[in-house]
Amino acid sequence: MTTARRDTYTPQTLLEVAVRVFNERGYDGTSMEHLSKAAGISKSSIYHHVAGKEELLRRAVNRALDGLFAVLSEEHARVGRAVDRLEYVTRRTVEVLVDELPYVTLLLRVRGNTDTERWAMERRRDFDHQVAALLKEAAADGDLRSDVELRLATRLLFGMINSVVEWYRPDSRGAADGAEIADAVVRLAFAGLRTDG
Amino acid sequence: MTTARRDTYTPQTLLEVAVRVFNERGYDGTSMEHLSKAAGISKSSIYHHVAGKEELLRRAVNRALDGLFAVLSEEHARVGRAVDRLEYVTRRTVEVLVDELPYVTLLLRVRGNTDTERWAMERRRDFDHQVAALLKEAAADGDLRSDVELRLATRLLFGMINSVVEWYRPDSRGAADGAEIADAVVRLAFAGLRTDG
Repeated sequence: MTTARRDTYTPQTLLEVAVRVFNERGYDGTSMEHLSKAAGISKSSIYHHVAGKEELLRRAVNRALDGLFAVLSEEHARVGRAVDRLEYVTRRTVEVLVDELPYVTLLLRVRGNTDTERWAMERRRDFDHQVAALLKEAAADGDLRSDVELRLATRLLFGMINSVVEWYRPDSRGAADGAEIADAVVRLAFAGLRTDG
Repeated sequence: MTTARRDTYTPQTLLEVAVRVFNERGYDGTSMEHLSKAAGISKSSIYHHVAGKEELLRRAVNRALDGLFAVLSEEHARVGRAVDRLEYVTRRTVEVLVDELPYVTLLLRVRGNTDTERWAMERRRDFDHQVAALLKEAAADGDLRSDVELRLATRLLFGMINSVVEWYRPDSRGAADGAEIADAVVRLAFAGLRTDG
């Protein structure tokens, strides 16, 4: 039997432990037993805080989604030329992704086996569609290159943005911060790798 | 008991089934029992073809890695200005990724729990290092923008390329082919989304 430590968790600190375990083992592969061991408190103590692991998942992906959707309501995402709004949203999305790294990582790995997962995927698609609409508008303004099909461009832009969760480790030596990474993504995505000269 | 069908597999057709199951369940989550069920033949029939699931993994990732390394020995990857060789390698890498989609998908998802997985990760890192060296050379030639740190640029270029395995579905209606996707990746990565005008 594991020695249970005194339950000093708040909903937030318990969520942090759960998200770490979900990301390590996969949500499907995590049992209440795993959570109890990782937190060092009994299962009944966990049930004192939440109804079950699905509630932890819901809170976690909500945090990621709220962060992403908040970007879309910021002034620079709403006012101005579509291509500039798109650049702004790209930059801020990367910043949210870095700030909320474990939560967005979990969101991007969700597979759709439970109601909460399907709901999260639905909201994520909704976010993606709003960004895709911005690309479409920018293309209609003639501000995006016309020799790359729009759906492909959208996929590749998200591919570049979302790849950050795969390799960014904030604790590694000399790690860039969110603003630096956001800046690099915006430069590469909008102006490309090659120098003009 | 499952009705075993007659074993008409060749090493290659058995490999195709195994790779599909590995990608669906994860390599760690796949047992010989799962492979036997998916192939519709008994476990002993599978052992007639291969020593075990690790041999199937080794063959699968080898196929992906051989395809990727072959790109580096092609003439346009060896001769010419570094930035042009980099563009060529980017294009051909995407093409290999699309042609060998299930095999490269498996390679990119390998986690390092067995010798074969660690060896695959090692070879993949070796490939990445060779491409990173090309970026470095192109930057030294002054052909890459200097305001994005080189390691970040390398990560983001691979992020864009590798994202293809996450969303490309060759069977979906109106799906682009490998050359079209490769073209889009090269244009966006090297020249960016924005029109100059």
